[in-house]
Amino acid sequence: MSSLAGCPLCETPGGAVVFEGHGFRVVRAQEPNLPAFWRLIWTAHAREFSDLPAADRHRVVDALVCIEEVVRARLQPTKVNIASLGNVVPHLHWHVIARFDWDTHFPSPVWCEAQRAPDADRLAQLSARCDQADALIAQALAAAQPDQTAF
Amino acid sequence: MSSLAGCPLCETPGGAVVFEGHGFRVVRAQEPNLPAFWRLIWTAHAREFSDLPAADRHRVVDALVCIEEVVRARLQPTKVNIASLGNVVPHLHWHVIARFDWDTHFPSPVWCEAQRAPDADRLAQLSARCDQADALIAQALAAAQPDQTAF
Repeated sequence: MSSLAGCPLCETPGGAVVFEGHGFRVVRAQEPNLPAFWRLIWTAHAREFSDLPAADRHRVVDALVCIEEVVRARLQPTKVNIASLGNVVPHLHWHVIARFDWDTHFPSPVWCEAQRAPDADRLAQLSARCDQADALIAQALAAAQPDQTAF
Repeated sequence: MSSLAGCPLCETPGGAVVFEGHGFRVVRAQEPNLPAFWRLIWTAHAREFSDLPAADRHRVVDALVCIEEVVRARLQPTKVNIASLGNVVPHLHWHVIARFDWDTHFPSPVWCEAQRAPDADRLAQLSARCDQADALIAQALAAAQPDQTAF
């Protein structure tokens, strides 16, 4: 199916759109304490990663790596987390999150309880660099994927 | 580097080995309340997924999907979770976890707080089916990857 009535990721962007095309969109999650948090959302409603044909799966993974490479180069995170969970919203989406040893949740996953209070100064600096990363991610994805058929 | 002194995933299997070859091993995590929990661990010490060449990344993803397909067919989970975090052990590994709406943590990620007590009867049934799934995963990975160079 291409879209599912009532599915939040069929009916809303799921974040601030950074790139759209080639069967998916990349958004930045609007998490004030975790600004370096991107999502790749498959446009059509699919439940599991294995529901996609192999070529589409490789396209998704190449895009995740493209995001990771920009994030590593621009933000120098302690670690990058990549995950497709979907227990609450079972529409295929991947999280790419740059983690820092000072962030509110490190080393726990971002979905668990916070470990410490936010560091306002570092968050402000990181947020500004994430805005720059957004533009670079959009450029890199557009350059890597000049059109849908030749991807 | 091929291995790192002091790295738990360089020095220990990281679970019960289900398959080994082609640059990685698949293990089953020894989590009594979450038996349907596999890990794909890259053999050589690598930190981030983007440290791997594209061919190796695609090989990893094809193997993850292979595991997911066996898991979906044999266990009919509510949802499959796939994740590479590594905040605590930064040696590249991917979790593939079959989730059930009755499991201790659903819908939370398995790393967060439990939501309910374990269901002993369902866990016993699931564990037996996971043992069967182990064998099928090993077969499927071996069949999909007849040798290291031709993968």
